[in-house]
This record gives sequence, C-alpha cells and structure tokens, in this order.
Amino acid sequence: MRILGVDPGSRATGYGMIETDGMRHRTILFGAVTTSARRPFHQRLLEIFEGLDTVLRRHPADVMAIEGVFHSVNVQAALKLGHARGVALVVAALRGLDVREYSPLEIKNAVVGFGRAEKIQVQTMVQLILGLPEIPSPDHAADALAVAICHAHRMKGEDVRR
Amino acid sequence: MRILGVDPGSRATGYGMIETDGMRHRTILFGAVTTSARRPFHQRLLEIFEGLDTVLRRHPADVMAIEGVFHSVNVQAALKLGHARGVALVVAALRGLDVREYSPLEIKNAVVGFGRAEKIQVQTMVQLILGLPEIPSPDHAADALAVAICHAHRMKGEDVRR
Repeated sequence: MRILGVDPGSRATGYGMIETDGMRHRTILFGAVTTSARRPFHQRLLEIFEGLDTVLRRHPADVMAIEGVFHSVNVQAALKLGHARGVALVVAALRGLDVREYSPLEIKNAVVGFGRAEKIQVQTMVQLILGLPEIPSPDHAADALAVAICHAHRMKGEDVRR
Repeated sequence: MRILGVDPGSRATGYGMIETDGMRHRTILFGAVTTSARRPFHQRLLEIFEGLDTVLRRHPADVMAIEGVFHSVNVQAALKLGHARGVALVVAALRGLDVREYSPLEIKNAVVGFGRAEKIQVQTMVQLILGLPEIPSPDHAADALAVAICHAHRMKGEDVRR
C-alpha cells in the first residue's frame, strides 16, 4: 500500500510518500511545494494543486494521510490553512485516494511513542523508521512523512498488502 | 466580458454568470452546487470542484468575483469556508480566470446603493438589475449574482467590452 502524507500550508505544502506492507516501510519520495508570495492567492493554490497532482500522476497512491485541524488556530490562519487543505483534499478525490485524518497527538504517539514529543524528536524518528541518511528536509516534508507513518502503523492488522 | 460570481460554502456553493458591456448586463446562468452531507468531506469538495469546472467548461468567463472574508467567523466556520473557497479559487486558476474579491459592504453598496441593506433588498435589486421574472433561487445563487454585479459596476470606466 502506498500512502501520501500531506502537510498543507499556503506558503509551503509538504508531501511524503511511503510504501508499506504494515511492517516495513520504503520511502518513495518527499518534498514540498513552495508557493511564490508575490503571486495572486489563487495562482498559489494552483501551484499546490499542480504540485500534488503531478506527484500522484507519477506515483499513484492508495491513501492520503493528513493532519486534522483540532488545535485552536486563529480565524485568519484557519482560513488560509483551509484553502490549502481544500486543494489537497480535492486532488486526493480527483485521483481516487481515500483520505485519513490524524490529530497531532496521534501522529506523535505513532511515530515517537508519546504524544508530547518535540518536533525534533518526531523528525529524528521519521529518519530512523525510514532509514534515511539524514532528517528529511524541509520540515514540511518531514511532517508529511510523519503522518504517512502514523497511517501505516494504524493499518497494522488490517490488510495493507494490496 | 463574462463574470462568474461565486458564493462558496461546503454545504452549498452558489454561482451566477453575467455578461456585461459595463452598462447592460445579461444573465447567462445561475444555480448552486449542493453537496451530500453523508459523503466524505473530500468527496464533497470534489463535487464543488466538478460543479464549478463544468460551468466554466461550458461557459468560459473572464473573471471570478467572490466575497472576501473580512467579517469575523469562528475558527471552525473559517476552516470549512476556507476549504470550499480554496476549491473555487483553484478552479478559477485552472480555467485562467482573474479573481476579484469584494467585501459584503462593497457588494451591498454596488447592488443596492447603501452598505447596510438587508438580504432581501439585495436579492430584489439583483432581480431588478438583471430583469429576472423572480428573485433568483437558491439564496446562494442570488448572492453569487450580487457579487458578479458588484464587479460589473466596479469595472465601469475600465474597458469591459472585450
């Protein structure tokens, strides 16, 4: 099963794809779509749309794993995040992926083993779990891989070997 | 010039297209994409995406006019609105439309002549300005036509006869 983790944001949207049999995970790719602050907002959303769509066209996946929004952000931040998140979700729907949402607590628990882990601990565990030569960069890509790993761990016991 | 007004919402996204030479307006179409509350959220966003994209494929337009978000909504409402709005804006970008945002005050001023107009006054003026046999329905479609008219009035003096 291939899982695309996504960490959406209007300035940068991270993505990270892993292939898993439920036990072992293989990194397919990771990166971030960085948008140009000087372009109109709808053009920046198009950059996110095309970036994620290109990833999924070249590397089809089964599921998009994405952080749910449970923590309190302010209204303006929520609006901006909502725009980027909406674009990511519509790409998932267009490409026929299921979508699974996880809270920050679930992601930290799944990756590090406790919910109050620091960001650097999460990133270090992502590196170790995936056997990468260094911490994945940029941060948004590491966060995207973390939510993909979270989904892979949650899938244990279900049939993920398709 | 053809203007597509959009009133985005995750439950219902209204749209209304007018053609204008700056003085006279002709109604091309209006309606709303209503999403199924029982479907997963990303599928509902896809319904909005495909609904607006189908309108623009059949009836190409030059500009999308959309209400900006200036009033304070709560975080959860802002997030949901952001998702639907992000989808609308990405359809505009994909179809090559410019995007113009207007505040509720600007829309009411442009359509009714004063910024504190009631909803029913706005809808009645939309009907009169466009010479429609009745108030456009549903409400989201009337609101979408209102923002399209707002853009048409703002364009007076600029060259809209393309």
